[in-house]
Amino acid sequence: MIDFLEVAKEEAISAMNKGEIPVGAVIVKNGVIIGKAHNLKETLKDSTAHAEILAIKEASNFLGDWRLNGAEMYVTLEPCPMCASAIVQSRISKLYIGTFNKDMGACGSVINITNNKWLNSSLEVKWLYDEGCSEILTTFFKNRRIDII
Amino acid sequence: MIDFLEVAKEEAISAMNKGEIPVGAVIVKNGVIIGKAHNLKETLKDSTAHAEILAIKEASNFLGDWRLNGAEMYVTLEPCPMCASAIVQSRISKLYIGTFNKDMGACGSVINITNNKWLNSSLEVKWLYDEGCSEILTTFFKNRRIDII
Repeated sequence: MIDFLEVAKEEAISAMNKGEIPVGAVIVKNGVIIGKAHNLKETLKDSTAHAEILAIKEASNFLGDWRLNGAEMYVTLEPCPMCASAIVQSRISKLYIGTFNKDMGACGSVINITNNKWLNSSLEVKWLYDEGCSEILTTFFKNRRIDII
Repeated sequence: MIDFLEVAKEEAISAMNKGEIPVGAVIVKNGVIIGKAHNLKETLKDSTAHAEILAIKEASNFLGDWRLNGAEMYVTLEPCPMCASAIVQSRISKLYIGTFNKDMGACGSVINITNNKWLNSSLEVKWLYDEGCSEILTTFFKNRRIDII
């Protein structure tokens, strides 16, 4: 069976190789990848071009429907509020998260958009606590600091 | 001087004429419209194709930069969490809101993404309490109920 988190990490590394904050996302339905993407904010000069948004667009295009019911997303980093809300609104059924985001995490770390009684959201979220996902980010920011110096 | 909320309302009406939930958004910088859009979720089969997201893309494309510092957005309906976070992350400087969104409003009505100490956001928000913006939505949902019957 394909390790979909590994595919998401490959996407994150593709982002890193372009100088983008390394985040990758993969959307799977019935065992098939229907969308995968990495952060392209700087490349596309578009603040909304996060991995999750681009993967949702790809999966919606693949299915010819904005409703992604029954699909699961694997993402290397806990989504920000924009992406967490996009995931809920796309009707993705389950979200696997590689590692937490202490600054912008919107699945419980900073705020909670995915499970929120006021927003009437109750997405199934599975934390994977994957060291590789953390290391990709640590490596990126360490190298970027060296660049700045 | 152009009434930018009126332009946003014209966008909302364009959405209604396509059977879309009628929301319109306009982005202005130095008195010039650099992005305007309406909700196209059903048309584009893309759950992220809200008016605000599409307007941000257009403005970013216009400026050749994802940073929209100094720009102001006029939107007919209080943004959802996805759009509120997108607006903050695009660095838009001020947000004018036509009317509140009791189900999904993320500028204070249901949750607050635009001014949130945990997210370190402090966007300037101006509520316009515009009856026309409410009426566009009321008309849309009333007609849709008749369609369903």
